[in-house]
Amino acid sequence: MTSEPAAALPIAFGDVEAAASRLRSERVRTELMVSRALNEAVGARVYVKPECLQRTGSFKFRGAFNRLAMMDDDARARGIVATSSGNHAQGIAEAAHHFCVPATIVMPTDAPELKKTRTRRAGADIVPYDRATDDRFAIAETIVAQSGGTFVSPYDDAGVMAGQGTVGLEIAHDLTALGTVPDAVLVPTSGGGLLSGIATVFRHLVPGAEVMPAEPEGFDDTTRSLVSGARQKNAQKTGSIADALMSEQPGLLTFAVNRTFAKPGFAVSDEAMMAAMAFAARELKLVVEPGGASALAAVLANREIFAGRTVVVVLSGGNVEPSVLAKALALELRGDLPN
Amino acid sequence: MTSEPAAALPIAFGDVEAAASRLRSERVRTELMVSRALNEAVGARVYVKPECLQRTGSFKFRGAFNRLAMMDDDARARGIVATSSGNHAQGIAEAAHHFCVPATIVMPTDAPELKKTRTRRAGADIVPYDRATDDRFAIAETIVAQSGGTFVSPYDDAGVMAGQGTVGLEIAHDLTALGTVPDAVLVPTSGGGLLSGIATVFRHLVPGAEVMPAEPEGFDDTTRSLVSGARQKNAQKTGSIADALMSEQPGLLTFAVNRTFAKPGFAVSDEAMMAAMAFAARELKLVVEPGGASALAAVLANREIFAGRTVVVVLSGGNVEPSVLAKALALELRGDLPN
Repeated sequence: MTSEPAAALPIAFGDVEAAASRLRSERVRTELMVSRALNEAVGARVYVKPECLQRTGSFKFRGAFNRLAMMDDDARARGIVATSSGNHAQGIAEAAHHFCVPATIVMPTDAPELKKTRTRRAGADIVPYDRATDDRFAIAETIVAQSGGTFVSPYDDAGVMAGQGTVGLEIAHDLTALGTVPDAVLVPTSGGGLLSGIATVFRHLVPGAEVMPAEPEGFDDTTRSLVSGARQKNAQKTGSIADALMSEQPGLLTFAVNRTFAKPGFAVSDEAMMAAMAFAARELKLVVEPGGASALAAVLANREIFAGRTVVVVLSGGNVEPSVLAKALALELRGDLPN
Repeated sequence: MTSEPAAALPIAFGDVEAAASRLRSERVRTELMVSRALNEAVGARVYVKPECLQRTGSFKFRGAFNRLAMMDDDARARGIVATSSGNHAQGIAEAAHHFCVPATIVMPTDAPELKKTRTRRAGADIVPYDRATDDRFAIAETIVAQSGGTFVSPYDDAGVMAGQGTVGLEIAHDLTALGTVPDAVLVPTSGGGLLSGIATVFRHLVPGAEVMPAEPEGFDDTTRSLVSGARQKNAQKTGSIADALMSEQPGLLTFAVNRTFAKPGFAVSDEAMMAAMAFAARELKLVVEPGGASALAAVLANREIFAGRTVVVVLSGGNVEPSVLAKALALELRGDLPN
């Protein structure tokens, strides 16, 4: 743990509290869930934060709404530009719809159809790019230059990070009401926005808890960066079932927070995420997308580490293609997934 | 509507309030959900009560717990006997586990494996019967005679009915907080316990709302009984995908309430329930079992009736075999289900 002063960080606890005020009447107040089957499977006390039930089907609405709520009317009216594989896109589209301003989303061609459809349905324009060959940020910059709009990063933005932190605020409040102090909070992580927001909250309210990323194998840039102390890139740009968690490297702002407050976490396989999706459907009655299930997968795949402890698992999103969910259910029925 | 005095009915509003007190620290307080996609699909304002997220995966825990909480210690200690295709079984098993008393469940051989496994996991004994040829009540009576235990009906029991009514109490409270008065409340219905509890609450708090059953085709005994004014039997005993909704006829006690307070409702096909399951997975991120989706199916299949109205849909349970959920998702992907 470094001892950087909190004042130097892009967000502070108060920013998350301010975001919570802005979001109060807009976000779904998801409640922590418990499951005897999950507790028995892990041998731990596991609390689940079901952000798949959030507006737009993922936590991303929180950050997008908070960011847009912080803009002045003139800037907002010039429109919002974003890059996203889908969940940030839907969050931005929904928030832009709320504020009656235009949104343009630079979205990979291989994004799930469900996410494309919903982004369009919320009224946003989609500009496609190839994940392997195109530079999405360059495309977004061009649009911003032409439109005068505002680029909103999916993660590397103080307003977005503070908005995502409201997930952590609600977890901390619910656990306090239960009289419970968790040992660890596992967070599906890509660019690190959600992780940074939750880590900021827990450092302030529950400093003894370890806040850790759960990333796909091959995309564990945040854990490797936390271990090395400097931002690491992933060798690959495609190749995970978790379409929402394939960032190239941690954000500058998010890593500034995470290197201070978060701990190295876990990398999980496609099979472990599909097993977690099947588990969530069977035992929690929740539909979770592959990336949204990475934290649950990390707990189920590392029971020996969590046995006897109190753990919070964030289910960050549920926008999965029905065919992918059906595949996870079928593989589990055939016994082809880890238990 | 008959004008029978409420005093003659097996439960009154106060019984539901008393049940709510007993259940307060035990049940999951499920919150009403809204979905823009659902509102747009139906052309109505639809509120969803997700009892698939209830403890044991269905509302049945409420009635079972309330009934057992009302028993004296001596009676409870002699054990509980019940007949159920699965959700009442799990509710009884969970409540019996809470009070540390034995439970024996008479369960059809064709009950979903998931429900059998969970009932056993909660510590209950299962006695199997054949749905087509055996008399489950005669089997239960024999066990009661031998054990001195107490038979708890899945629906025809004032304590169970009052417990299920807490679903309606929560719906009414949530809608009042939103300043909304619903036109209709659609309730998955078999023996009629949940319907009777919700109808009792709404007659007291929101008398303008129509509380209506949603039943499988071929098992619409409650609606036919409400139309005719006397209890009607179903011609068939098996043959619906909705394993939870295949009662032979309305209960005596439940029908006394429902004929007074409920309105004739809807019969839905297997395909409509599977379409509703797929809709719930895709848009609500919820796993719902076929019978639990009957009310959602009724709304989706009768949009012309509900257009422009405010409707509450109860999703009563989520204990579906993964293979059945996968089948619903696959059929919808192939375009083989109604839209």
